[in-house]
Amino acid sequence: MLSEDELGRLSVVLVRARDPNNIGAVARAMYDFGFHDLRLVNEYPVPLERARSAIDASSVLETAREFLTVAEAVADCTLVVGTTAVGLRRKEHPLHTLAQAGPLLRAELSRAEPASPKLASSGPKARVALVFGSEKTGLSNEELSHCHWLLTIPMHQTEGMRHASMNLGQAAAVCLYELVRNPEAKKPEAESLQELLEPATAEDLERLTQLTIDVMETSGYAQRHPANFDETLVRRLVLHMGLDRPHALAWTGILRQLLWKLRNPQDAAQH
Amino acid sequence: MLSEDELGRLSVVLVRARDPNNIGAVARAMYDFGFHDLRLVNEYPVPLERARSAIDASSVLETAREFLTVAEAVADCTLVVGTTAVGLRRKEHPLHTLAQAGPLLRAELSRAEPASPKLASSGPKARVALVFGSEKTGLSNEELSHCHWLLTIPMHQTEGMRHASMNLGQAAAVCLYELVRNPEAKKPEAESLQELLEPATAEDLERLTQLTIDVMETSGYAQRHPANFDETLVRRLVLHMGLDRPHALAWTGILRQLLWKLRNPQDAAQH
Repeated sequence: MLSEDELGRLSVVLVRARDPNNIGAVARAMYDFGFHDLRLVNEYPVPLERARSAIDASSVLETAREFLTVAEAVADCTLVVGTTAVGLRRKEHPLHTLAQAGPLLRAELSRAEPASPKLASSGPKARVALVFGSEKTGLSNEELSHCHWLLTIPMHQTEGMRHASMNLGQAAAVCLYELVRNPEAKKPEAESLQELLEPATAEDLERLTQLTIDVMETSGYAQRHPANFDETLVRRLVLHMGLDRPHALAWTGILRQLLWKLRNPQDAAQH
Repeated sequence: MLSEDELGRLSVVLVRARDPNNIGAVARAMYDFGFHDLRLVNEYPVPLERARSAIDASSVLETAREFLTVAEAVADCTLVVGTTAVGLRRKEHPLHTLAQAGPLLRAELSRAEPASPKLASSGPKARVALVFGSEKTGLSNEELSHCHWLLTIPMHQTEGMRHASMNLGQAAAVCLYELVRNPEAKKPEAESLQELLEPATAEDLERLTQLTIDVMETSGYAQRHPANFDETLVRRLVLHMGLDRPHALAWTGILRQLLWKLRNPQDAAQH
Protein backbone atom coordinates (compact mmCIF):
# COMPACT_ATOMS: atom_id res chain seq x y z
CA MET A 1 0.00 0.00 0.00
CA LEU A 2 1.23 3.49 -0.77
CA SER A 3 1.77 5.89 2.13
CA GLU A 4 -0.12 9.19 2.30
CA ASP A 5 3.12 10.87 1.25
CA GLU A 6 3.44 8.62 -1.79
CA LEU A 7 -0.22 9.04 -2.72
CA GLY A 8 0.35 12.79 -2.63
CA ARG A 9 3.27 12.56 -5.08
CA LEU A 10 1.18 11.36 -7.99
CA SER A 11 -0.41 13.91 -10.30
CA VAL A 12 -3.09 12.93 -12.78
CA VAL A 13 -2.84 15.18 -15.85
CA LEU A 14 -5.83 15.31 -18.21
CA VAL A 15 -5.01 16.86 -21.57
CA ARG A 16 -7.88 18.39 -23.55
CA ALA A 17 -10.53 16.62 -21.47
CA ARG A 18 -13.62 18.75 -21.95
CA ASP A 19 -16.50 16.52 -20.84
CA PRO A 20 -17.24 17.44 -17.21
CA ASN A 21 -18.63 13.94 -16.61
CA ASN A 22 -15.35 12.38 -17.66
CA ILE A 23 -13.36 14.77 -15.50
CA GLY A 24 -15.68 14.03 -12.59
CA ALA A 25 -15.28 10.30 -13.09
CA VAL A 26 -11.48 10.63 -13.03
CA ALA A 27 -11.72 12.72 -9.84
CA ARG A 28 -13.92 10.07 -8.27
CA ALA A 29 -11.46 7.27 -9.12
CA MET A 30 -8.64 9.37 -7.65
CA TYR A 31 -10.62 9.95 -4.47
CA ASP A 32 -11.54 6.27 -4.22
CA PHE A 33 -7.90 5.22 -4.30
CA GLY A 34 -6.53 8.11 -2.18
CA PHE A 35 -4.91 10.33 -4.81
CA HIS A 36 -5.71 14.04 -4.91
CA ASP A 37 -3.52 16.08 -7.28
CA LEU A 38 -5.52 16.63 -10.48
CA ARG A 39 -4.18 18.86 -13.26
CA LEU A 40 -6.04 19.89 -16.37
CA VAL A 41 -4.42 21.08 -19.58
CA ASN A 42 -6.80 23.08 -21.74
CA GLU A 43 -6.67 26.12 -23.95
CA TYR A 44 -9.99 27.26 -22.52
CA PRO A 45 -11.33 26.88 -18.96
CA VAL A 46 -13.47 23.80 -18.38
CA PRO A 47 -16.87 24.02 -16.64
CA LEU A 48 -15.71 21.97 -13.64
CA GLU A 49 -18.83 22.82 -11.66
CA ARG A 50 -20.71 20.58 -14.05
CA ALA A 51 -18.62 17.51 -13.20
CA ARG A 52 -21.69 15.85 -11.80
CA SER A 53 -20.52 12.26 -11.66
CA ALA A 54 -17.87 13.21 -9.12
CA ILE A 55 -19.87 11.96 -6.15
CA ASP A 56 -17.62 12.22 -3.07
CA ALA A 57 -14.78 13.65 -5.13
CA SER A 58 -15.44 17.36 -4.60
CA SER A 59 -12.20 17.72 -2.64
CA VAL A 60 -10.22 16.54 -5.67
CA LEU A 61 -12.08 18.84 -8.05
CA GLU A 62 -11.82 21.86 -5.75
CA THR A 63 -8.03 21.69 -5.68
CA ALA A 64 -7.65 20.80 -9.38
CA ARG A 65 -5.35 23.19 -11.22
CA GLU A 66 -5.57 24.32 -14.83
CA PHE A 67 -2.61 24.76 -17.18
CA LEU A 68 -2.26 25.93 -20.77
CA THR A 69 0.41 23.43 -21.81
CA VAL A 70 1.64 19.97 -20.88
CA ALA A 71 5.10 21.45 -20.22
CA GLU A 72 3.70 23.71 -17.51
CA ALA A 73 1.52 20.97 -16.03
CA VAL A 74 4.42 18.53 -15.56
CA ALA A 75 7.17 21.07 -14.81
CA ASP A 76 7.72 19.86 -11.21
CA CYS A 77 7.48 16.14 -12.04
CA THR A 78 10.49 13.82 -12.08
CA LEU A 79 8.78 11.07 -14.06
CA VAL A 80 6.20 11.78 -16.75
CA VAL A 81 4.31 8.78 -18.10
CA GLY A 82 1.82 8.97 -20.93
CA THR A 83 -1.06 6.55 -21.38
CA THR A 84 -1.86 5.28 -24.83
CA ALA A 85 -3.79 2.67 -26.76
CA VAL A 86 -1.36 0.18 -28.25
CA GLY A 87 -2.41 0.96 -31.79
CA LEU A 88 -1.79 4.67 -31.47
CA ARG A 89 1.65 4.41 -29.99
CA ARG A 90 4.60 6.22 -31.49
CA LYS A 91 7.71 4.12 -32.00
CA GLU A 92 9.93 6.79 -30.48
CA HIS A 93 8.75 5.95 -26.95
CA PRO A 94 9.48 2.94 -24.79
CA LEU A 95 6.20 1.22 -23.93
CA HIS A 96 5.24 -0.84 -20.88
CA THR A 97 2.04 -2.67 -20.12
CA LEU A 98 0.24 -1.31 -17.08
CA ALA A 99 1.23 -4.34 -14.97
CA GLN A 100 4.89 -3.76 -15.87
CA ALA A 101 4.56 -0.03 -15.26
CA GLY A 102 3.16 -0.46 -11.73
CA PRO A 103 6.45 -1.30 -10.00
CA LEU A 104 8.30 1.44 -11.94
CA LEU A 105 5.76 4.07 -10.91
CA ARG A 106 5.69 2.89 -7.29
CA ALA A 107 9.51 2.94 -7.17
CA GLU A 108 9.53 6.58 -8.26
CA LEU A 109 6.77 7.54 -5.81
CA SER A 110 8.76 6.00 -2.95
CA ARG A 111 12.01 7.72 -3.99
CA ALA A 112 12.24 10.70 -1.66
CA GLU A 113 15.69 12.05 -2.53
CA PRO A 114 17.41 12.91 -5.84
CA ALA A 115 19.48 10.08 -7.29
CA SER A 116 22.82 11.90 -7.23
CA PRO A 117 23.16 13.85 -3.99
CA LYS A 118 26.78 14.46 -4.92
CA LEU A 119 25.78 16.41 -8.02
CA ALA A 120 22.88 18.26 -6.48
CA SER A 121 22.87 18.95 -2.77
CA SER A 122 19.18 19.70 -2.92
CA GLY A 123 16.80 18.88 -5.72
CA PRO A 124 13.22 18.17 -6.54
CA LYS A 125 11.46 15.40 -4.66
CA ALA A 126 10.12 12.64 -6.80
CA ARG A 127 6.77 13.45 -8.40
CA VAL A 128 5.05 11.29 -10.97
CA ALA A 129 2.71 12.63 -13.65
CA LEU A 130 0.29 10.18 -15.24
CA VAL A 131 -0.88 11.87 -18.43
CA PHE A 132 -4.16 11.02 -20.19
CA GLY A 133 -5.15 12.40 -23.57
CA SER A 134 -8.64 13.08 -24.80
CA GLU A 135 -10.81 10.03 -25.45
CA LYS A 136 -11.13 10.91 -29.10
CA THR A 137 -7.60 11.74 -30.13
CA GLY A 138 -5.30 10.53 -27.36
CA LEU A 139 -2.05 12.45 -26.91
CA SER A 140 -0.42 14.35 -29.76
CA ASN A 141 3.20 13.91 -30.77
CA GLU A 142 4.13 17.15 -29.04
CA GLU A 143 2.34 16.05 -25.86
CA LEU A 144 3.96 12.60 -25.99
CA SER A 145 7.41 14.20 -26.29
CA HIS A 146 7.11 15.33 -22.66
CA CYS A 147 6.79 11.72 -21.48
CA HIS A 148 9.72 9.59 -20.32
CA TRP A 149 7.81 6.52 -21.42
CA LEU A 150 4.31 5.28 -22.18
CA LEU A 151 2.04 2.75 -20.60
CA THR A 152 -0.79 0.88 -22.21
CA ILE A 153 -3.76 -0.91 -20.67
CA PRO A 154 -3.97 -4.40 -22.20
CA MET A 155 -7.23 -4.30 -24.12
CA HIS A 156 -8.78 -7.12 -26.06
CA GLN A 157 -8.00 -7.08 -29.77
CA THR A 158 -10.76 -8.33 -32.00
CA GLU A 159 -9.61 -9.30 -35.44
CA GLY A 160 -10.06 -6.46 -37.85
CA MET A 161 -11.20 -4.12 -35.09
CA ARG A 162 -9.13 -1.91 -32.90
CA HIS A 163 -10.12 -0.04 -29.79
CA ALA A 164 -9.22 3.61 -30.04
CA SER A 165 -9.40 4.07 -26.28
CA MET A 166 -11.14 3.19 -23.06
CA ASN A 167 -13.59 5.43 -21.31
CA LEU A 168 -11.45 8.07 -19.57
CA GLY A 169 -12.85 7.48 -16.07
CA GLN A 170 -12.42 3.73 -16.39
CA ALA A 171 -8.89 4.04 -17.78
CA ALA A 172 -7.91 6.27 -14.84
CA ALA A 173 -9.54 3.87 -12.35
CA VAL A 174 -7.67 0.90 -13.79
CA CYS A 175 -4.29 2.73 -13.80
CA LEU A 176 -4.71 4.01 -10.25
CA TYR A 177 -5.85 0.59 -9.07
CA GLU A 178 -2.64 -0.92 -10.44
CA LEU A 179 -0.70 1.51 -8.25
CA VAL A 180 -2.50 0.60 -5.02
CA ARG A 181 -3.11 -3.10 -5.64
CA ASN A 182 -1.15 -5.11 -3.13
CA PRO A 183 -1.31 -8.88 -3.46
CA GLU A 184 0.72 -9.31 -0.25
CA ALA A 185 -1.83 -7.40 1.81
CA LYS A 186 -3.33 -9.06 4.84
CA LYS A 187 -6.97 -9.99 4.71
CA PRO A 188 -8.89 -6.71 4.63
CA GLU A 189 -10.25 -7.34 8.12
CA ALA A 190 -9.18 -9.80 10.74
CA GLU A 191 -12.52 -11.41 11.26
CA SER A 192 -12.93 -13.19 7.95
CA LEU A 193 -14.46 -16.63 8.20
CA GLN A 194 -11.27 -18.66 8.39
CA GLU A 195 -9.84 -16.55 11.18
CA LEU A 196 -13.05 -16.16 13.15
CA LEU A 197 -14.00 -19.80 13.28
CA GLU A 198 -12.12 -22.62 14.90
CA PRO A 199 -10.60 -24.95 12.33
CA ALA A 200 -11.95 -28.49 12.16
CA THR A 201 -9.69 -31.18 13.58
CA ALA A 202 -8.83 -34.34 11.69
CA GLU A 203 -10.95 -36.19 14.27
CA ASP A 204 -13.99 -34.03 13.47
CA LEU A 205 -13.57 -34.71 9.78
CA GLU A 206 -12.91 -38.42 10.22
CA ARG A 207 -16.12 -38.70 12.28
CA LEU A 208 -17.93 -36.99 9.42
CA THR A 209 -16.27 -39.31 6.90
CA GLN A 210 -17.38 -42.43 8.78
CA LEU A 211 -20.89 -41.07 9.18
CA THR A 212 -21.03 -40.38 5.44
CA ILE A 213 -19.97 -43.99 4.78
CA ASP A 214 -22.70 -45.20 7.15
CA VAL A 215 -25.25 -43.07 5.32
CA MET A 216 -24.07 -44.37 1.93
CA GLU A 217 -24.49 -47.96 3.10
CA THR A 218 -27.76 -47.50 4.94
CA SER A 219 -29.40 -45.54 2.13
CA GLY A 220 -28.51 -48.16 -0.47
CA TYR A 221 -26.20 -45.75 -2.37
CA ALA A 222 -23.23 -48.09 -1.77
CA GLN A 223 -25.08 -50.95 -3.40
CA ARG A 224 -26.18 -48.92 -6.41
CA HIS A 225 -22.82 -47.20 -6.99
CA PRO A 226 -20.18 -49.59 -5.67
CA ALA A 227 -17.43 -47.80 -7.64
CA ASN A 228 -17.98 -44.64 -5.60
CA PHE A 229 -18.14 -46.51 -2.28
CA ASP A 230 -14.52 -46.22 -1.36
CA GLU A 231 -13.37 -44.94 2.00
CA THR A 232 -10.42 -42.98 0.58
CA LEU A 233 -12.67 -41.33 -1.97
CA VAL A 234 -15.21 -40.35 0.68
CA ARG A 235 -12.50 -38.97 2.95
CA ARG A 236 -11.18 -36.82 0.16
CA LEU A 237 -14.73 -35.69 -0.55
CA VAL A 238 -15.11 -34.54 3.06
CA LEU A 239 -11.71 -32.86 3.20
CA HIS A 240 -12.47 -30.97 0.00
CA MET A 241 -15.47 -29.38 1.67
CA GLY A 242 -12.97 -27.18 3.53
CA LEU A 243 -15.12 -27.15 6.65
CA ASP A 244 -14.30 -25.25 9.81
CA ARG A 245 -15.25 -26.82 13.14
CA PRO A 246 -18.76 -25.36 13.66
CA HIS A 247 -19.75 -26.31 10.11
CA ALA A 248 -18.23 -29.79 10.44
CA LEU A 249 -20.15 -30.35 13.66
CA ALA A 250 -23.35 -29.03 12.08
CA TRP A 251 -22.98 -31.50 9.20
CA THR A 252 -22.24 -34.29 11.65
CA GLY A 253 -25.50 -33.55 13.44
CA ILE A 254 -27.43 -33.48 10.17
CA LEU A 255 -26.01 -36.83 9.02
CA ARG A 256 -26.68 -38.43 12.43
CA GLN A 257 -30.31 -37.40 12.23
CA LEU A 258 -30.49 -38.65 8.65
CA LEU A 259 -28.98 -41.98 9.66
CA TRP A 260 -31.41 -42.34 12.55
CA LYS A 261 -34.32 -41.67 10.20
CA LEU A 262 -32.99 -44.17 7.65
CA ARG A 263 -32.84 -46.80 10.36
CA ASN A 264 -36.18 -45.91 11.94
CA PRO A 265 -38.40 -45.02 8.98
CA GLN A 266 -41.64 -45.57 10.91
CA ASP A 267 -40.67 -43.74 14.06
CA ALA A 268 -41.78 -40.11 14.10
CA ALA A 269 -40.62 -39.44 17.64
CA GLN A 270 -37.28 -37.88 16.65
CA HIS A 271 -37.22 -35.78 13.52
CA MET B 1 -3.65 -13.61 -20.90
CA LEU B 2 -6.95 -15.45 -20.83
CA SER B 3 -7.92 -17.51 -23.88
CA GLU B 4 -11.11 -16.75 -25.79
CA ASP B 5 -12.60 -19.83 -24.14
CA GLU B 6 -11.71 -18.56 -20.66
CA LEU B 7 -12.96 -15.05 -21.45
CA GLY B 8 -16.26 -16.63 -22.46
CA ARG B 9 -16.60 -18.45 -19.13
CA LEU B 10 -16.94 -15.30 -17.07
CA SER B 11 -20.40 -13.86 -16.49
CA VAL B 12 -20.84 -10.37 -15.09
CA VAL B 13 -24.06 -10.24 -13.05
CA LEU B 14 -25.52 -6.84 -12.21
CA VAL B 15 -28.13 -6.96 -9.47
CA ARG B 16 -30.71 -4.14 -9.37
CA ALA B 17 -28.65 -1.91 -11.65
CA ARG B 18 -31.21 0.45 -13.11
CA ASP B 19 -29.18 3.35 -14.49
CA PRO B 20 -28.69 2.65 -18.22
CA ASN B 21 -25.47 4.69 -18.20
CA ASN B 22 -24.00 2.47 -15.51
CA ILE B 23 -25.04 -0.69 -17.34
CA GLY B 24 -23.55 0.71 -20.54
CA ALA B 25 -20.31 1.55 -18.78
CA VAL B 26 -20.04 -2.02 -17.45
CA ALA B 27 -20.72 -3.36 -20.94
CA ARG B 28 -18.01 -1.14 -22.35
CA ALA B 29 -15.45 -2.35 -19.76
CA MET B 30 -16.39 -5.95 -20.60
CA TYR B 31 -15.96 -5.29 -24.30
CA ASP B 32 -12.63 -3.52 -23.74
CA PHE B 33 -11.20 -6.53 -21.91
CA GLY B 34 -12.79 -9.22 -24.10
CA PHE B 35 -15.62 -10.49 -21.89
CA HIS B 36 -19.13 -10.75 -23.27
CA ASP B 37 -21.61 -12.56 -21.01
CA LEU B 38 -23.64 -9.90 -19.20
CA ARG B 39 -26.59 -10.87 -16.97
CA LEU B 40 -28.99 -8.48 -15.33
CA VAL B 41 -31.11 -9.28 -12.28
CA ASN B 42 -34.10 -7.00 -11.98
CA GLU B 43 -37.72 -7.27 -10.97
CA TYR B 44 -38.66 -5.02 -13.87
CA PRO B 45 -37.11 -4.80 -17.33
CA VAL B 46 -34.39 -2.18 -17.73
CA PRO B 47 -34.39 0.29 -20.64
CA LEU B 48 -31.20 -1.12 -22.13
CA GLU B 49 -31.61 0.85 -25.34
CA ARG B 50 -30.78 3.93 -23.32
CA ALA B 51 -27.37 2.62 -22.25
CA ARG B 52 -25.75 5.43 -24.17
CA SER B 53 -22.26 5.29 -22.67
CA ALA B 54 -21.77 1.83 -24.15
CA ILE B 55 -19.76 3.05 -27.10
CA ASP B 56 -18.47 0.02 -28.98
CA ALA B 57 -20.15 -2.34 -26.53
CA SER B 58 -23.40 -2.91 -28.37
CA SER B 59 -22.50 -6.58 -28.94
CA VAL B 60 -22.35 -7.12 -25.17
CA LEU B 61 -25.64 -5.31 -24.56
CA GLU B 62 -27.44 -7.09 -27.39
CA THR B 63 -26.73 -10.51 -25.92
CA ALA B 64 -27.33 -9.46 -22.28
CA ARG B 65 -29.89 -11.64 -20.53
CA GLU B 66 -32.34 -10.60 -17.86
CA PHE B 67 -33.25 -12.69 -14.80
CA LEU B 68 -35.68 -12.22 -11.94
CA THR B 69 -33.44 -13.63 -9.20
CA VAL B 70 -29.74 -14.08 -8.43
CA ALA B 71 -30.33 -17.85 -8.11
CA GLU B 72 -31.54 -18.03 -11.73
CA ALA B 73 -28.78 -15.76 -13.00
CA VAL B 74 -25.98 -17.86 -11.51
CA ALA B 75 -27.58 -21.30 -11.89
CA ASP B 76 -25.00 -22.59 -14.41
CA CYS B 77 -21.97 -21.10 -12.61
CA THR B 78 -19.46 -23.19 -10.68
CA LEU B 79 -17.98 -20.26 -8.76
CA VAL B 80 -20.04 -17.26 -7.66
CA VAL B 81 -18.11 -14.30 -6.29
CA GLY B 82 -19.76 -11.20 -4.88
CA THR B 83 -18.15 -7.77 -4.85
CA THR B 84 -18.46 -5.62 -1.78
CA ALA B 85 -17.11 -2.56 -0.04
CA VAL B 86 -15.09 -3.65 2.98
CA GLY B 87 -17.34 -1.83 5.41
CA LEU B 88 -20.51 -3.50 4.19
CA ARG B 89 -19.22 -7.03 4.30
CA ARG B 90 -21.01 -9.74 6.21
CA LYS B 91 -18.85 -11.85 8.50
CA GLU B 92 -20.35 -15.06 7.21
CA HIS B 93 -18.39 -14.81 3.96
CA PRO B 94 -14.71 -15.31 3.31
CA LEU B 95 -13.27 -12.13 1.85
CA HIS B 96 -10.35 -11.62 -0.51
CA THR B 97 -8.85 -8.43 -1.85
CA LEU B 98 -9.14 -8.13 -5.62
CA ALA B 99 -5.42 -8.84 -6.10
CA GLN B 100 -5.79 -12.04 -4.06
CA ALA B 101 -8.97 -12.98 -5.89
CA GLY B 102 -7.40 -12.68 -9.35
CA PRO B 103 -5.49 -15.99 -9.30
CA LEU B 104 -8.47 -17.82 -7.76
CA LEU B 105 -10.81 -16.56 -10.46
CA ARG B 106 -8.34 -17.31 -13.24
CA ALA B 107 -7.80 -20.82 -11.87
CA GLU B 108 -11.53 -21.51 -12.06
CA LEU B 109 -11.82 -20.02 -15.56
CA SER B 110 -9.02 -22.30 -16.76
CA ARG B 111 -10.51 -25.41 -15.15
CA ALA B 112 -12.31 -27.14 -18.00
CA GLU B 113 -13.34 -30.41 -16.33
CA PRO B 114 -15.16 -31.23 -13.07
CA ALA B 115 -12.85 -31.90 -10.11
CA SER B 116 -13.99 -35.47 -9.44
CA PRO B 117 -14.37 -37.28 -12.74
CA LYS B 118 -14.72 -40.55 -10.81
CA LEU B 119 -17.87 -39.36 -9.07
CA ALA B 120 -19.38 -37.60 -12.03
CA SER B 121 -18.62 -38.84 -15.51
CA SER B 122 -19.92 -35.62 -17.01
CA GLY B 123 -20.59 -32.36 -15.27
CA PRO B 124 -20.82 -28.64 -15.80
CA LYS B 125 -17.82 -26.82 -17.22
CA ALA B 126 -16.36 -24.17 -15.00
CA ARG B 127 -18.20 -20.85 -15.18
CA VAL B 128 -17.50 -17.88 -12.95
CA ALA B 129 -20.10 -15.28 -11.97
CA LEU B 130 -18.85 -11.91 -10.78
CA VAL B 131 -21.79 -10.31 -9.00
CA PHE B 132 -22.17 -6.55 -8.49
CA GLY B 133 -24.90 -4.99 -6.37
CA SER B 134 -26.49 -1.62 -6.91
CA GLU B 135 -24.28 1.39 -6.27
CA LYS B 136 -26.56 2.58 -3.50
CA THR B 137 -27.23 -0.54 -1.48
CA GLY B 138 -24.71 -3.16 -2.59
CA LEU B 139 -25.81 -6.78 -2.31
CA SER B 140 -28.43 -7.89 0.21
CA ASN B 141 -27.90 -10.77 2.64
CA GLU B 142 -30.04 -13.03 0.47
CA GLU B 143 -28.05 -12.08 -2.63
CA LEU B 144 -24.74 -12.57 -0.81
CA SER B 145 -25.81 -16.06 0.30
CA HIS B 146 -25.48 -17.23 -3.32
CA CYS B 147 -21.78 -16.31 -3.32
CA HIS B 148 -18.98 -18.74 -2.52
CA TRP B 149 -16.88 -15.84 -1.35
CA LEU B 150 -16.55 -12.08 -1.67
CA LEU B 151 -13.95 -9.80 -3.12
CA THR B 152 -13.29 -6.19 -2.26
CA ILE B 153 -11.48 -3.47 -4.19
CA PRO B 154 -8.94 -1.84 -1.87
CA MET B 155 -10.25 1.70 -1.53
CA HIS B 156 -8.64 4.50 0.43
CA GLN B 157 -10.03 4.93 3.92
CA THR B 158 -10.17 8.48 5.16
CA GLU B 159 -10.49 8.80 8.89
CA GLY B 160 -14.11 9.13 9.89
CA MET B 161 -15.27 8.65 6.32
CA ARG B 162 -16.10 5.48 4.53
CA HIS B 163 -16.74 4.90 0.88
CA ALA B 164 -20.01 3.13 0.33
CA SER B 165 -18.98 2.01 -3.12
CA MET B 166 -17.17 2.85 -6.30
CA ASN B 167 -18.86 3.91 -9.49
CA LEU B 168 -20.28 0.71 -10.98
CA GLY B 169 -18.57 1.05 -14.37
CA GLN B 170 -15.23 1.79 -12.74
CA ALA B 171 -15.56 -1.08 -10.26
CA ALA B 172 -16.29 -3.49 -13.11
CA ALA B 173 -13.36 -2.13 -15.15
CA VAL B 174 -10.96 -2.57 -12.24
CA CYS B 175 -12.16 -6.14 -11.48
CA LEU B 176 -11.98 -7.22 -15.12
CA TYR B 177 -8.58 -5.61 -15.52
CA GLU B 178 -7.29 -7.68 -12.59
CA LEU B 179 -8.36 -10.81 -14.50
CA VAL B 180 -6.53 -9.91 -17.71
CA ARG B 181 -3.49 -8.15 -16.28
CA ASN B 182 -0.42 -10.16 -17.06
CA PRO B 183 2.86 -8.92 -15.64
CA GLU B 184 4.78 -11.63 -17.49
CA ALA B 185 3.50 -10.49 -20.87
CA LYS B 186 5.97 -9.60 -23.57
CA LYS B 187 6.23 -6.03 -24.65
CA PRO B 188 2.88 -5.15 -26.29
CA GLU B 189 4.51 -4.91 -29.70
CA ALA B 190 7.90 -6.04 -30.89
CA GLU B 191 9.05 -2.71 -32.17
CA SER B 192 9.38 -0.81 -28.90
CA LEU B 193 12.38 1.46 -28.70
CA GLN B 194 14.81 -0.96 -27.07
CA GLU B 195 14.12 -3.65 -29.64
CA LEU B 196 14.00 -1.39 -32.68
CA LEU B 197 17.15 0.53 -32.04
CA GLU B 198 20.64 -0.85 -31.89
CA PRO B 199 22.02 -0.83 -28.35
CA ALA B 200 24.93 1.47 -27.63
CA THR B 201 28.29 -0.24 -27.20
CA ALA B 202 30.56 0.45 -24.25
CA GLU B 203 32.90 2.15 -26.73
CA ASP B 204 30.13 4.54 -27.84
CA LEU B 205 29.39 5.44 -24.25
CA GLU B 206 33.06 5.79 -23.26
CA ARG B 207 33.56 8.19 -26.18
CA LEU B 208 30.60 10.19 -24.87
CA THR B 209 32.03 10.08 -21.34
CA GLN B 210 35.40 11.43 -22.47
CA LEU B 211 33.74 14.12 -24.57
CA THR B 212 31.67 15.16 -21.54
CA ILE B 213 34.85 15.42 -19.47
CA ASP B 214 36.42 17.57 -22.21
CA VAL B 215 33.36 19.82 -22.21
CA MET B 216 33.44 20.13 -18.41
CA GLU B 217 37.07 21.17 -18.53
CA THR B 218 36.83 23.47 -21.51
CA SER B 219 33.72 25.23 -20.25
CA GLY B 220 35.21 25.94 -16.84
CA TYR B 221 32.69 23.72 -15.05
CA ALA B 222 35.51 21.49 -13.74
CA GLN B 223 37.18 24.45 -12.12
CA ARG B 224 34.01 25.79 -10.52
CA HIS B 225 32.76 22.38 -9.28
CA PRO B 226 35.87 20.28 -8.73
CA ALA B 227 33.96 17.84 -6.51
CA ASN B 228 31.78 16.85 -9.46
CA PHE B 229 34.70 16.56 -11.84
CA ASP B 230 35.39 12.89 -11.37
CA GLU B 231 35.71 10.49 -14.26
CA THR B 232 33.87 7.66 -12.50
CA LEU B 233 31.01 9.98 -11.64
CA VAL B 234 30.73 11.26 -15.20
CA ARG B 235 30.81 7.72 -16.59
CA ARG B 236 27.97 6.70 -14.29
CA LEU B 237 26.10 9.82 -15.35
CA VAL B 238 26.39 8.80 -19.01
CA LEU B 239 25.46 5.16 -18.37
CA HIS B 240 22.39 6.25 -16.44
CA MET B 241 21.12 8.05 -19.50
CA GLY B 242 20.28 4.58 -20.85
CA LEU B 243 21.09 5.61 -24.41
CA ASP B 244 20.71 3.37 -27.43
CA ARG B 245 23.25 3.71 -30.23
CA PRO B 246 21.55 6.33 -32.45
CA HIS B 247 20.89 8.57 -29.44
CA ALA B 248 24.43 8.09 -28.09
CA LEU B 249 25.87 9.05 -31.49
CA ALA B 250 23.55 12.05 -31.67
CA TRP B 251 24.74 13.25 -28.26
CA THR B 252 28.32 12.67 -29.30
CA GLY B 253 27.80 14.88 -32.31
CA ILE B 254 26.19 17.60 -30.21
CA LEU B 255 29.01 17.61 -27.66
CA ARG B 256 31.67 17.67 -30.40
CA GLN B 257 30.06 20.73 -31.91
CA LEU B 258 29.78 22.33 -28.48
CA LEU B 259 33.44 21.59 -27.77
CA TRP B 260 34.47 23.04 -31.11
CA LYS B 261 32.50 26.22 -30.36
CA LEU B 262 34.01 26.48 -26.87
CA ARG B 263 37.47 26.30 -28.38
CA ASN B 264 36.69 28.60 -31.30
CA PRO B 265 34.39 31.25 -29.83
CA GLN B 266 35.09 33.79 -32.57
CA ASP B 267 34.80 31.45 -35.52
CA ALA B 268 31.37 31.41 -37.08
CA ALA B 269 32.33 29.14 -39.97
CA GLN B 270 31.03 25.94 -38.29
CA HIS B 271 27.89 26.21 -36.20
